[in-house]
Amino acid sequence: MNERLTQAQIDQALASLSGWSQQGNAIVRTFTLRSFPAALAFAAAVGHLAERADHHPDILIQYKRVTLTLSTHSAGGLTVKDFALAREIDAIA
Amino acid sequence: MNERLTQAQIDQALASLSGWSQQGNAIVRTFTLRSFPAALAFAAAVGHLAERADHHPDILIQYKRVTLTLSTHSAGGLTVKDFALAREIDAIA
Repeated sequence: MNERLTQAQIDQALASLSGWSQQGNAIVRTFTLRSFPAALAFAAAVGHLAERADHHPDILIQYKRVTLTLSTHSAGGLTVKDFALAREIDAIA
Repeated sequence: MNERLTQAQIDQALASLSGWSQQGNAIVRTFTLRSFPAALAFAAAVGHLAERADHHPDILIQYKRVTLTLSTHSAGGLTVKDFALAREIDAIA
């Protein structure tokens, strides 16, 4: 679970997702909600998934936009945990 | 309410606060909470104040840390609205 993925594995995992892009050692996606309260609620829902997975993305709320940055700091890069959480997030977006 | 403050006014307002610093056209403070759920709850509480004030800071949650960036985009700089919201936030921190 905590093993860094190779770039080939990252490319393959990214190809199976939509809206996420790689930025260095992280994957990033920005969601645009319909209002600031909706953005807050989405951030809270992401937080719930993150706490359950014990894997905590950076969450940036800018009015209606929520930008999530996922990386596995303990592994120094991207792992399957990042892509698993990205899929869980996409399922509630 | 929507008039840009002068640098002298900004300096005076900052001197009356603790923990906030100026970064360009914004004031910024990072709060460290005791856990990720506590950070989420704090972000939600800030969001409630922001919505009531119709003034929306950038809210960045990084595990236990919440960084707030306040600026009045419509004025192109800092206004009394930023410092009023900063004081409200400090009161719940």
